[in-house]
Amino acid sequence: MNFLIPPGDSLPRHICKSCGEIHYSNPKIIVGALPVWEDKILLCKRAIEPRYGKWTLPCGYMENAETVEEGAIRETAEEAKANIKIISLQSVYSIPHINQIYMIFLADLVDLNFSPGEESLEVELYNEEDIPWKEIAFSAVQFSLETFLRDRRDNTLGYTRVGKFYRNIKDY
Amino acid sequence: MNFLIPPGDSLPRHICKSCGEIHYSNPKIIVGALPVWEDKILLCKRAIEPRYGKWTLPCGYMENAETVEEGAIRETAEEAKANIKIISLQSVYSIPHINQIYMIFLADLVDLNFSPGEESLEVELYNEEDIPWKEIAFSAVQFSLETFLRDRRDNTLGYTRVGKFYRNIKDY
Repeated sequence: MNFLIPPGDSLPRHICKSCGEIHYSNPKIIVGALPVWEDKILLCKRAIEPRYGKWTLPCGYMENAETVEEGAIRETAEEAKANIKIISLQSVYSIPHINQIYMIFLADLVDLNFSPGEESLEVELYNEEDIPWKEIAFSAVQFSLETFLRDRRDNTLGYTRVGKFYRNIKDY
Repeated sequence: MNFLIPPGDSLPRHICKSCGEIHYSNPKIIVGALPVWEDKILLCKRAIEPRYGKWTLPCGYMENAETVEEGAIRETAEEAKANIKIISLQSVYSIPHINQIYMIFLADLVDLNFSPGEESLEVELYNEEDIPWKEIAFSAVQFSLETFLRDRRDNTLGYTRVGKFYRNIKDY
C-alpha cells in the first residue's frame, strides 16, 4: 500500500501498489442499542479485547448493506442473543482521533430470552442504582447511559443527544 | 486486491496482494446541513456529477479526524462558502444498497455572506413554496427537506427523524 494524494483530491489515500485501486479511509460507524425492560437496562460483559471484562451496551461496527437500525438489531442479537424493537435514535458520539462515530438506539427488549453471545461473558439487566459505572468499557457507552437516565428523569426521551469526545464543547 | 474471508472473520474483505493488509469496507457517512435564514432554506446547485445541475443541501463524505458536526460545517463552507451554527441533528437516512448513511444537521445561517464553492453552480435561499422539488439531487435531501417542513408546521423541530431508503418501513 502507498499513501499518496490522488489527482484531483486534497488528502492522501491508501493506494494498492499492485493494482492502483484507491481505498478511501473514512470514519467508521459503530451501531448499538440501549435495550430497556421495565426500569432496567441490558448490559453485556465483554469477552474480547479491548476492555475484556468491562460492561458495554451491545454495539459493533456497522456492516455494508444494512441500515443503521438493522445494524443495531444485528449487534444486539450477536452479543446478547436478545430481540429488540427500536424506539428512536438516542445518542450520536464522535471520537475524531480514532475515526469512530457511535450511533446508539433506544430500544424495547421484546422478551427475556437473552444470553451471552460469542463476544460476551455475561448479559444482565441493571437497575439505575446498580450500573457498574467504574466498569463501563467505552466513553460513548457512558455518555449514552448518562443521557438516557437524565432524559428519563427530565421526561425528554426522544430527543437525540449529539455527543463529542471533546468535553469542553457544549452538547446540544 | 483479493476479496477473501480473513481468519476469525465472517465476511470477505479486501486484502492487499502485495502486503497482506486488510482494508475493511464499511458504510460511509455523508454529513450535511439544512441551513436556515428566517423562513428560508439554503440550497446549492451541483456543479459536479452525479446529478449535475440538480439542487442539494450542502453535504459530502465525512473525513477522518473530524466530528459529525465539524464535517457538516466544513461541507457547508466548501460548497456554499457559508457560515453556520449547528442547532441539532435533523435526519439520518440509510441507503443500504450503496452503503451510505446521511446525517443532516439543522443549522442557523450566521450571515448572508455565501457564494458558490467549486462544487456548486449557484447557492440560493428558498422559501418553502419555491423549493424546486422536481430538481432535488438526492432522496436523502428530499427526506430531510420534507421532514423539516413537516416538523416546522407541527412545532416538533428538535426531534431527529431516522429515515430509510425502503419506503415501506415505518419512520419512527
